[in-house]
Amino acid sequence: MSKMVEVYGHVQGIRKLGRIGFIVLRTFDSIEQVTVKKENVSEETWRLFKEELGLEYFIRVRGEYVESSIAKLGREILAKEIEVIAPSKPLPIDLSDKVEAEFPTRIRYRYLDIRRPKVKAILKVRSTLLRAAREFFYKMGFVELNFPIIIATATEGGANLFPVKYFDRQAYLAQSAQLYKQSAIPVFGKVFTIGPSFRAEKSRTRKHLTEFWQIDVEKALTTPDELMEIQFKLVKYIHEQILEHNERELEILKVKLEVPEYYHKLSYDEALEVIRRKGFDIKWGEDFGSDEERALCTSFDQPVFVTEFPEQVVAFYYKVKEDDPRLAHRIDMYGPGEYGVEWSSGGLREHDPEKLRRRMIAKGLNPENFGWYLDMFNYGFPPHGGFGMGVERLLQSILKLDKIHETVLYPRTPDILEP
Amino acid sequence: MSKMVEVYGHVQGIRKLGRIGFIVLRTFDSIEQVTVKKENVSEETWRLFKEELGLEYFIRVRGEYVESSIAKLGREILAKEIEVIAPSKPLPIDLSDKVEAEFPTRIRYRYLDIRRPKVKAILKVRSTLLRAAREFFYKMGFVELNFPIIIATATEGGANLFPVKYFDRQAYLAQSAQLYKQSAIPVFGKVFTIGPSFRAEKSRTRKHLTEFWQIDVEKALTTPDELMEIQFKLVKYIHEQILEHNERELEILKVKLEVPEYYHKLSYDEALEVIRRKGFDIKWGEDFGSDEERALCTSFDQPVFVTEFPEQVVAFYYKVKEDDPRLAHRIDMYGPGEYGVEWSSGGLREHDPEKLRRRMIAKGLNPENFGWYLDMFNYGFPPHGGFGMGVERLLQSILKLDKIHETVLYPRTPDILEP
Repeated sequence: MSKMVEVYGHVQGIRKLGRIGFIVLRTFDSIEQVTVKKENVSEETWRLFKEELGLEYFIRVRGEYVESSIAKLGREILAKEIEVIAPSKPLPIDLSDKVEAEFPTRIRYRYLDIRRPKVKAILKVRSTLLRAAREFFYKMGFVELNFPIIIATATEGGANLFPVKYFDRQAYLAQSAQLYKQSAIPVFGKVFTIGPSFRAEKSRTRKHLTEFWQIDVEKALTTPDELMEIQFKLVKYIHEQILEHNERELEILKVKLEVPEYYHKLSYDEALEVIRRKGFDIKWGEDFGSDEERALCTSFDQPVFVTEFPEQVVAFYYKVKEDDPRLAHRIDMYGPGEYGVEWSSGGLREHDPEKLRRRMIAKGLNPENFGWYLDMFNYGFPPHGGFGMGVERLLQSILKLDKIHETVLYPRTPDILEP
Repeated sequence: MSKMVEVYGHVQGIRKLGRIGFIVLRTFDSIEQVTVKKENVSEETWRLFKEELGLEYFIRVRGEYVESSIAKLGREILAKEIEVIAPSKPLPIDLSDKVEAEFPTRIRYRYLDIRRPKVKAILKVRSTLLRAAREFFYKMGFVELNFPIIIATATEGGANLFPVKYFDRQAYLAQSAQLYKQSAIPVFGKVFTIGPSFRAEKSRTRKHLTEFWQIDVEKALTTPDELMEIQFKLVKYIHEQILEHNERELEILKVKLEVPEYYHKLSYDEALEVIRRKGFDIKWGEDFGSDEERALCTSFDQPVFVTEFPEQVVAFYYKVKEDDPRLAHRIDMYGPGEYGVEWSSGGLREHDPEKLRRRMIAKGLNPENFGWYLDMFNYGFPPHGGFGMGVERLLQSILKLDKIHETVLYPRTPDILEP
């Protein structure tokens, strides 16, 4: 085995002995071992290697592949020539996984932090997740749409919105695609979008971001069972695609990924029992907080759906159960285990404009603020349902990450606005 | 041919004769002809058909397919039973393509306007365009990344930004992914993103939106020729995919789509000559305005690249030509013909931090406002280049649309913020 190659990469490690030396070269796709022998290279290359080259220099190496029993790839590059393409100053943070910098420092230097193999691995898995989700819906005949980010009024009631100055008017950043994706139902019947959403919550937790991506789906003529089936298959497909495309990344992240095999389906009442068994004193009619959610997730090792929530905890656009108006057709999906969180929220929607109006009023909202949204239900609006699944929440669970911030290239929180 | 079917759809047309009648039923996927005969249906269905049913009612029809020499699909549905799922009030706008409402009225009722087959067709082609663009880059090994929308400082100089109130701080909506996508180059080498961008321009033209989507691409170790090749192949692939997936939509839109066969490559100087031959008195060193752009586009029937722009018209992050510092490596791509516009802008980037700093100052920018961006070039930053291609601009050209607003479900302009 011997083949001339030309490789570009960053100097991740460097060791200089007498007349020989070694470079660990991080290319865009792999890690190469480079051996530099004085007898093999020009004086200029040897000088450069001995006196100039430092960590994170971006270099071009010309040489030949030779077998190696030590190198991970089973080969190494015997250098013939080295050229510095771009030098590097000493790094302000340590990029090795041995000494991980504190989180605020890592974020401050995020543009360097992403060079760490673990960070890169997470972002590559994220890329697969997005691709898999879109493929899943394309195959099922869903139409991909883009909904506006800048909106005139509050989508779901008004809290937690970021205000935008839109020329002389006040506008906001969309909290979700909810109202807009519903509006596409009469035309397309099956729609999805994957895009950014914004929530001005001051939550400083391990699972909150102010800017996050959501898989938003809506389908005409659906049922609670079909919505659960779609979501379970989606999550399963995402797991399978990550296994197929990210073997190396999972290894770097030391994650043993297990594809979900089936799902649990609990009514709200049944979920309460599970949570109470874990010692929480939650009353009927309360929504789950972080602790209750955790109690629920850690009780299962497969995804869990909770259905039929009390009417008082669901947003106005959910459909109330016809045979029991204390309950509404909301369906939440939870990831299982220690790293499980709420993955999605959805359900059946109310499509009768008069019932919608009454529910808005009952929930303290002014129907006049929902002009076009309320109006659209007057013109032959099909029954429908859907869900919004958090990209970062799902990825955090899948990769068993402590902080949701790790799932994003440049996270946004109440404290982080740069880089 | 006779098969029992159950079909859901909107009543797009209705004709009631004596003991027979016809419904044009717009389902999510097609247009069905329904024949209703008094002798075939229950009294209730006949009453409903004669007395209740109106335009845009959402109904369920059970019946059987029979051959038809008149119907477009070569078949019609002989109704057995009709059920109203959701009634419709009289429409505030005409949805037929015969009497098209004025544009402001169409936008006001956009949630109804999208029921028009032409609008639906445009949005379906948009969906194909996005899918094709992503597939193209996946196949070439590019990693898909998401960049922040809320940013702390002006991306490219400060003009035309929408201000956002970010808790107690001032922030902005990202004008482009430019600086962020560059930051991913040392790690991934080949990256792309397709997402929303925002420009607070008060332009009220047929080709401006304040919220638009961009295909943003960046590649390490590239050349002007490679960047042109990538873009041409991308546009070609998008055309091919639309031809393959949207035959029906192209028919509805009466668009004869021709796949680009080759491209023209002009230097800025050569482009000036073309524009001057059309009677425009443009001086060396000026950027192209709308009229000059039009003169250029209408001179060709294949896509055109213009290269090597005067240094003074390009943004600070472009690389100046080494052998002629009057010129910079900017490459713009234009669509050909009457509906041609600027599709993309890109080129080679400067990756030397000292040169970047000097160019910022020369262009009246304060390097201190570019803290992390400038800093990142100190750590072995690979030479690179890329481009940003406007999704709406490209779609407008491909579908030969007068207004760019038609390419978006809910357009945003200085005047339009709702729905």
